[in-house]
Amino acid sequence: MNLGVAKIKKQNVRINFERLKRTIIKSSQIGTIPGDGLCRLALTEEDKIMRDIFMEWMDEAGLKVKIDDYGNMYGRREGLSDLPPVLVGSHLDTQPNGGRFDGIIGVLAALEIIRTLNDNNIETLRPIEIVNFTNEEGARFEPPLLGSGGATETFDKDFIYNRKDREGKTFEEELSKIGYKGEMSNRVKDVHAFFELHIEQGPVLENEQISIGAVEGIQGMTWLELKVTGESGHAGPTPMSLRCDALMAVSKLIVHIEKKAKCSDADTSVTVGRMSISPNVVNSIPKEVIFSLDIRNKDDAVRELLIEDLRKELQEISKVEKVKLEIKDLWEVKASYFHPGLVKQVVSSAKECGYSVKRMVSGAGHDSKYINQIAPTCMIFVPSVGGRSHVETELTLDADIEKGANVLLLSVLEISNNKKIDELNKESLPSY
Amino acid sequence: MNLGVAKIKKQNVRINFERLKRTIIKSSQIGTIPGDGLCRLALTEEDKIMRDIFMEWMDEAGLKVKIDDYGNMYGRREGLSDLPPVLVGSHLDTQPNGGRFDGIIGVLAALEIIRTLNDNNIETLRPIEIVNFTNEEGARFEPPLLGSGGATETFDKDFIYNRKDREGKTFEEELSKIGYKGEMSNRVKDVHAFFELHIEQGPVLENEQISIGAVEGIQGMTWLELKVTGESGHAGPTPMSLRCDALMAVSKLIVHIEKKAKCSDADTSVTVGRMSISPNVVNSIPKEVIFSLDIRNKDDAVRELLIEDLRKELQEISKVEKVKLEIKDLWEVKASYFHPGLVKQVVSSAKECGYSVKRMVSGAGHDSKYINQIAPTCMIFVPSVGGRSHVETELTLDADIEKGANVLLLSVLEISNNKKIDELNKESLPSY
Repeated sequence: MNLGVAKIKKQNVRINFERLKRTIIKSSQIGTIPGDGLCRLALTEEDKIMRDIFMEWMDEAGLKVKIDDYGNMYGRREGLSDLPPVLVGSHLDTQPNGGRFDGIIGVLAALEIIRTLNDNNIETLRPIEIVNFTNEEGARFEPPLLGSGGATETFDKDFIYNRKDREGKTFEEELSKIGYKGEMSNRVKDVHAFFELHIEQGPVLENEQISIGAVEGIQGMTWLELKVTGESGHAGPTPMSLRCDALMAVSKLIVHIEKKAKCSDADTSVTVGRMSISPNVVNSIPKEVIFSLDIRNKDDAVRELLIEDLRKELQEISKVEKVKLEIKDLWEVKASYFHPGLVKQVVSSAKECGYSVKRMVSGAGHDSKYINQIAPTCMIFVPSVGGRSHVETELTLDADIEKGANVLLLSVLEISNNKKIDELNKESLPSY
Repeated sequence: MNLGVAKIKKQNVRINFERLKRTIIKSSQIGTIPGDGLCRLALTEEDKIMRDIFMEWMDEAGLKVKIDDYGNMYGRREGLSDLPPVLVGSHLDTQPNGGRFDGIIGVLAALEIIRTLNDNNIETLRPIEIVNFTNEEGARFEPPLLGSGGATETFDKDFIYNRKDREGKTFEEELSKIGYKGEMSNRVKDVHAFFELHIEQGPVLENEQISIGAVEGIQGMTWLELKVTGESGHAGPTPMSLRCDALMAVSKLIVHIEKKAKCSDADTSVTVGRMSISPNVVNSIPKEVIFSLDIRNKDDAVRELLIEDLRKELQEISKVEKVKLEIKDLWEVKASYFHPGLVKQVVSSAKECGYSVKRMVSGAGHDSKYINQIAPTCMIFVPSVGGRSHVETELTLDADIEKGANVLLLSVLEISNNKKIDELNKESLPSY
């Protein structure tokens, strides 16, 4: 095989940001909502328009396009061998009040890489496939990650096809309606490596003025629901000494939860995001408070120990406060660990370009979570201004998108010329 | 004047509890809801039925009935003189999920006193008037206490007549419709003293196993609304160290408010009864929390000082927590001080009957609050089982209702034979 072309040009090749920017602007015109945002829910007319354009772009770039039975779109650029391909991509759907970058830059940068390789006549040992996964956001059909979860058989077909939106329309109906129900045989499989460029959706990179995050994995997560029951009563005639005030008790529980989390580990995060109070009247002592607790850590053992401690300690506080505490398990997701060899590659690609880079962990779920179950995977993060995402004002600066796309290009190039993934990395899993 | 009859019989006269009980049972059949409760909103068909029966009962008892322009119903038993009358009563309307006792026993015990005096041929120096005030609860037409507030000119006629229920029907329309729009000239005025028997609506008497509360006044009250603004963000990618979490901050504010209230004064009570969280999603950091704060004390100065301190200290905590705190004044009601001579009379009537009695303060508002502005006033409390009221399971035991009605009888008898209120009490206002 002749690998000479790739080897020679790899060092200096860079993406064409002006061209990438044009694709981002084009995408930003499909599903536009006031305030510079996008509403491009999965399998809607807007999604179809975006898919059609993306299909056209893939055709123009000479890619061989396939659609699988979940509507995931793949475009393949052949390699010099028929070894398993390197997969690159993310998703083109958005939240109802979403931004212009979440997922989108991961797909469009993948396309830009193909165009750049074409411009430079670079051939790779392995094929490269770019991908747009269906319904990553889960904003229309719950849960999120249905496309990547389907392709990796995390969810079965019946489950996915029968997911309904708020109007009762099923995933399958809507997928057929927009003309993107493809073949099961087209599902992604036998992948050498997967890269996903994505906005950070948090404030860490911006805060530390770093351009590139080399993502080592995705935090594990537990969702609990805590129900605290006290006694109601009229705010006037009930002296505080005779009350069992559910909200006063909950305030102490939350203060304790935060304190405990801060003592646990700098990477632990806890969030009480949802709360309901009953009867919720100015002059009635709250009888019942129900609140959610989201606990995350990159290390499952740390998270589990924290939860075990909290279960005991919150009961003790509740006893002192004379209220009843019930804890319900809502959801648990184990931590994901990306491939250390690929993480190392991202770091070294960033350094090669002279960009600042930081190893970090993703707090949010991504398609990479499921693809990681079937293939070595790694994500590349670029900064989110103000840490904002899932809002119209979501923003990643041009310079950062360009850097992220270049790191993606160099990483994909390197790995697509690699015969076996294991040759590249002899390291063990990271110690976290 | 011949006061002999009253003087002789007063010592031993007692109400007829079986008869009083029958009127309570009759009342409990009008507006019945599941769970032994009542829904008898002001100026509804149910209220009309109850009023018609009460009217009949007053007629049968030989009372001269008057209705004023707010639908307040008065029944007068003449005295041996035309000195200003002693007024006794409360209200017959209920909350939508109300009980069978709140207000009702105050009106029906007043009727029972008349019947008892009739039975025993007891004449009094002063006339005795019994009263049913309109819309005490404020559950249909806000605010509460419209009848007594109107009669005492606390609210003006336009304001009251234009109060609307949730369907847009006005107070005036509905008052006319049920046939209880009377004459302005019938409004209560020139009253010697007012007594109101009422359930405690709190747990204090039951907790201390005392039958009678001699109510010295009504707590002053402040309602504030606090709005805390932080920054939202995705629960996953935003490390706790970079958050401005509105709910974490609010939990600390509430813990501080409770601690401060408990240090302030045993009579202080603070309640955070209502709270809303935005965006209120499990995996979103709360951006905004709005909560109510109800602060009560029998001493306005203590309450005002507490609020002044809290305004400063809560701002300091908010600064540390990196959130913005805005405090809005919703409502303030000054404390009411009932007539010390009448309070003393209630204590001595209870002792005369051999009942346990305690001086206390009302945490809730009552018609007595407004009547106290135009005449010497006092309330008599009887225990609420479990401190419950404004619920279907509201309960006051028969024995306690009987005791309360007897204390009311003896107090009314004593005061209605009294020429000038000032002769009875040379004491100054209580020192609280």
